[in-house]
Amino acid sequence: MTIRVAIIGAGLMGADHARIVSEEVSGAKVQVVCDRDRGRARRIAESTGAADVGSDAKEVVARTDVDAVIIASPDGTHAALSLACVRAGKHVLCEKPLSQSSDECLQVMEAERASGSKLIQLGFMRRYDQSYVEMKQALTDGMLGQAIMMHNFHRNVETPAAGFVAEMAITNSAPHEFDVARFILDTEYTGVSAFAPRTKNGGVGPVFLVLETREGQLVNVEINNNASYGYDVRAELVGENGAISLVDPVHSRLDISLTSRTSYASDWRPRYGEAYRRQNRDFIAFVESGRFPEIASDCWDGYATAVTAEAGVAALQSGHKVPVNMIAKPEFYT
Amino acid sequence: MTIRVAIIGAGLMGADHARIVSEEVSGAKVQVVCDRDRGRARRIAESTGAADVGSDAKEVVARTDVDAVIIASPDGTHAALSLACVRAGKHVLCEKPLSQSSDECLQVMEAERASGSKLIQLGFMRRYDQSYVEMKQALTDGMLGQAIMMHNFHRNVETPAAGFVAEMAITNSAPHEFDVARFILDTEYTGVSAFAPRTKNGGVGPVFLVLETREGQLVNVEINNNASYGYDVRAELVGENGAISLVDPVHSRLDISLTSRTSYASDWRPRYGEAYRRQNRDFIAFVESGRFPEIASDCWDGYATAVTAEAGVAALQSGHKVPVNMIAKPEFYT
Amino acid sequence: MTIRVAIIGAGLMGADHARIVSEEVSGAKVQVVCDRDRGRARRIAESTGAADVGSDAKEVVARTDVDAVIIASPDGTHAALSLACVRAGKHVLCEKPLSQSSDECLQVMEAERASGSKLIQLGFMRRYDQSYVEMKQALTDGMLGQAIMMHNFHRNVETPAAGFVAEMAITNSAPHEFDVARFILDTEYTGVSAFAPRTKNGGVGPVFLVLETREGQLVNVEINNNASYGYDVRAELVGENGAISLVDPVHSRLDISLTSRTSYASDWRPRYGEAYRRQNRDFIAFVESGRFPEIASDCWDGYATAVTAEAGVAALQSGHKVPVNMIAKPEFYT
Amino acid sequence: MTIRVAIIGAGLMGADHARIVSEEVSGAKVQVVCDRDRGRARRIAESTGAADVGSDAKEVVARTDVDAVIIASPDGTHAALSLACVRAGKHVLCEKPLSQSSDECLQVMEAERASGSKLIQLGFMRRYDQSYVEMKQALTDGMLGQAIMMHNFHRNVETPAAGFVAEMAITNSAPHEFDVARFILDTEYTGVSAFAPRTKNGGVGPVFLVLETREGQLVNVEINNNASYGYDVRAELVGENGAISLVDPVHSRLDISLTSRTSYASDWRPRYGEAYRRQNRDFIAFVESGRFPEIASDCWDGYATAVTAEAGVAALQSGHKVPVNMIAKPEFYT
Repeated sequence: MTIRVAIIGAGLMGADHARIVSEEVSGAKVQVVCDRDRGRARRIAESTGAADVGSDAKEVVARTDVDAVIIASPDGTHAALSLACVRAGKHVLCEKPLSQSSDECLQVMEAERASGSKLIQLGFMRRYDQSYVEMKQALTDGMLGQAIMMHNFHRNVETPAAGFVAEMAITNSAPHEFDVARFILDTEYTGVSAFAPRTKNGGVGPVFLVLETREGQLVNVEINNNASYGYDVRAELVGENGAISLVDPVHSRLDISLTSRTSYASDWRPRYGEAYRRQNRDFIAFVESGRFPEIASDCWDGYATAVTAEAGVAALQSGHKVPVNMIAKPEFYT
Repeated sequence: MTIRVAIIGAGLMGADHARIVSEEVSGAKVQVVCDRDRGRARRIAESTGAADVGSDAKEVVARTDVDAVIIASPDGTHAALSLACVRAGKHVLCEKPLSQSSDECLQVMEAERASGSKLIQLGFMRRYDQSYVEMKQALTDGMLGQAIMMHNFHRNVETPAAGFVAEMAITNSAPHEFDVARFILDTEYTGVSAFAPRTKNGGVGPVFLVLETREGQLVNVEINNNASYGYDVRAELVGENGAISLVDPVHSRLDISLTSRTSYASDWRPRYGEAYRRQNRDFIAFVESGRFPEIASDCWDGYATAVTAEAGVAALQSGHKVPVNMIAKPEFYT
Repeated sequence: MTIRVAIIGAGLMGADHARIVSEEVSGAKVQVVCDRDRGRARRIAESTGAADVGSDAKEVVARTDVDAVIIASPDGTHAALSLACVRAGKHVLCEKPLSQSSDECLQVMEAERASGSKLIQLGFMRRYDQSYVEMKQALTDGMLGQAIMMHNFHRNVETPAAGFVAEMAITNSAPHEFDVARFILDTEYTGVSAFAPRTKNGGVGPVFLVLETREGQLVNVEINNNASYGYDVRAELVGENGAISLVDPVHSRLDISLTSRTSYASDWRPRYGEAYRRQNRDFIAFVESGRFPEIASDCWDGYATAVTAEAGVAALQSGHKVPVNMIAKPEFYT
Repeated sequence: MTIRVAIIGAGLMGADHARIVSEEVSGAKVQVVCDRDRGRARRIAESTGAADVGSDAKEVVARTDVDAVIIASPDGTHAALSLACVRAGKHVLCEKPLSQSSDECLQVMEAERASGSKLIQLGFMRRYDQSYVEMKQALTDGMLGQAIMMHNFHRNVETPAAGFVAEMAITNSAPHEFDVARFILDTEYTGVSAFAPRTKNGGVGPVFLVLETREGQLVNVEINNNASYGYDVRAELVGENGAISLVDPVHSRLDISLTSRTSYASDWRPRYGEAYRRQNRDFIAFVESGRFPEIASDCWDGYATAVTAEAGVAALQSGHKVPVNMIAKPEFYT
């Protein structure tokens, strides 16, 4: 009873998901790889033993030999494809974001609710990362006391693309921080302030956000897409009695030339390889059992991060604190 | 030609200064220890071999057997005593702050300028700390590129006194961060926003400040006077090409009970012992040579931190960003 | 064409291998779980979806529905069961050691050679651990210059069993270090000296070995099976131009009670989970392709570690350096 | 009542001692600087405000305006000059070693004993280093249980001089480790084994020593005078319940070029600056009070390290374990 998975999108993320499903998750296999560029789809299909390729995502979603779908196509297609999966009654692991538009998120939520059961798991894989798992555990165990503040730093070597502007730091990169901090603190945001330091060369500099939560906690987020020195994600949760910090796990230390050195990766994949594996195993278990995974993100989480990002962009553009106005949480998502 | 130093204030800081002058600085000795509580003054005088004690600070400043003064009395007396030193034509190392009132700082500056030469060195000793020295060096060397952002964290085990309120985090603790970040970045602040997370028990929680500089850099400051876990000062300077972080120097690591542990001190003294030594040696050299030490803080720096703290308090109380409005820098201080 | 694997031995290691094969390796499944205690076998069979259980290992090895074998039964049975696999022409992943007797290793090698192709992969999984991979890479890349010395520390919380004596540190624990150091240095040992500090309570203390290699390098090994504080494996490779050390990857750091802490595991499994996965995937690829994995240990490596352990025991008992006398390496294993 | 100190030897160490006495220790001043090269002596005299220079060490020791002596001349002169100080009844801080010859150490001990009181403090300054202080404290506090083993690593960037041979690693560098390990464990050595890895280029490679103590503990010492990557001293004390390691205190961490880096010094001075200060203050207090400092090394310690080094050289040359045969400890030194 192997789960047959369709991979939509044959880019970097799609290739990774296909590899994970074919090599690192039991009980599942890649059935179809779909991309507008059939050659790209075919290369991944061959390396993962997929039965077929396709170029029309909605057709692929509807195929009877497809049991579940992983959406790794461009962000703008996520909501429409998720809707297609819901209509086809198929479980879907949708890469973040569900949509950059909170309104579109609400439409997907409405459709999912109408279908009667949760079908959409979002790819906020940080929740599965061992560092965040230990951070949440420390809070739940009570050893930190009440959470007061969380500092988050997201740094890339360089901006992913030429057209990248500061707002995209908030809409594309920050949602990972928005989601995982909400998850760890078990809360929602009420307001956001945004600051952008000037950069000399006019390039895209960091954005710094100060979010406030329902309980009055602060969640600070630095998004620095041109950090140059390495891929580096840090976070610290400060409680009444102590603090816990993520540690980027390194495996060796080199002593040479009057320095002692550890390495940074140049992108996110080494850091989150295990988180993706755990997430995708949880997704296959979700498909098998119908029970939504305890720690995964659902459409409500996707909506919450979209509203937060919208408020963040407004805060950046206005220079003022902007409230994060969300609808009341539907019972379906509690 | 030993410099005869008067120590004003026989509390914790005064005792430390007296010990440093008597044991760890050559070319100087403690001549008089002054405190309203003569018994307290006498105890320090005995342990440091001081010739005399006094209880009237202005009288002590004026004594002919006193060549230089270290002011370590309560904050509210700093400006008046500094003025007394200027009037007496004596060099003074004044513990921070010069005054919490920027207006009072301006009065002292006016008097100092009228005296014709710099006499007042302020006790912002972080500038002498090896960690900050290396941070500034890395920036000056050019290896970080342009500075973009600086993150500062100041954590105490618990608030120093019962009457401590959030505003005091800004007026009493944050000035160290204000000064050292200005110094490292070689800039002035233009605006400040302030955030204070709620704390469950109604105690004094952290204050988080976002300062903007003349060059459009961000300087973030967490002041957490009830951090509980230890005395911990962190800072990271983020540049275009890399970042440099302070490391709290530890001397041993203990492996026990399924943990690997290093220790935090319970107050600031172990961390800054060497910085105080270097500062005080620089002060004695200043007294000897008349040349203001290259890296020390002067009254302008005291004024700048006072204005910044006033703006920070206003920002905290108003919930809005508040500009940091300073007078043009007098030529005397350039 | 899924590889059907028999797991021999349903203890801790057998359960781990069964779980890895069923959940974390694609292209393989657990077919039979074999243990003298059929109940124990059945529990693992159920949790991993195995088709059957057995209690006679040699019968299980011979079954036509078994394509490959993983031996995780008691050490004394490894050689005989490996021989059975060779006779049945089946690939086998045999937990270390192949045998504690170098003579018995030679018998297995003779049988394997007679069979015409390599069939036996040994479970020295450290070679697959990312830390050692990076260490070997640093040496191969030439950045360390010539290797001069390697320091190895193996620490357990407590001895595994009541009857544990110092010699068992050499025969049971040290072979991991013997193998991985030979592998990284690409050499063989020529001599070994052994030292055992007294322990106050008469318990089993550490053993310290100094091995010399063909190239005149030193390989030091501390085996400390009662280290109490945690499971901790360290190694440092010292070259002419620098040194590289393993770092035990941690995921978080807790600041509490005047300490900054990271955690040690209480046994080896968290540290080597990924190494086991990589090793077992390599084993399945070996079964599929017939090509012996590039970095895996073979019977020659098993023989080399057995001879080294025998010399180590002799050195400990005699108090003198003992030569490591090996046969010339058969062409079959080059 | 300022102590007037003569500095014998105006090399690197003499210059450091002169600077420490003149700038960092209260109650003392440099009176005479003595060196065969009067120009070298004069340069140091000028920078430290010494009253005079000299070129005949024995004459300088005898001067009536010299209260105490610091010997920092070549190793071969230490014993004779220490004897001269004893004859003159003057306290002396003698750089290590007292002598490389244990017989010569015995002669000095005999003279000191005959003088009726301890006059000679040896410059084994590691005992004053904060890392070792914390290590000894952890053992004394009982948190480690009984000490079982100590690992020591001494690494220099390169050998100090052209004529350096492996034996000199034992006679010149290792005594620091011999002394501090004896001090921390509060024991004496009974035997030593020595190993020297071959180096490709025929240069001076490391020496590795395994020492055994009266209590049956192991003390391992790597002396690596051509470590290339930096000055690096490490030590770990392993007890029944846990272990404590020295940490080289660093002050900043640089993130750049896909690495996270801290720095090594190129020689010992940054690491031990504070230890020298503490040692020299203790020496001045010794001169003032006549009470031998509690933690300082005396001639017995100098003798013990000399005997150990002699045994180490014999072990290296013979390839066998060599006993460390010491006389019974004279009551005078207990």
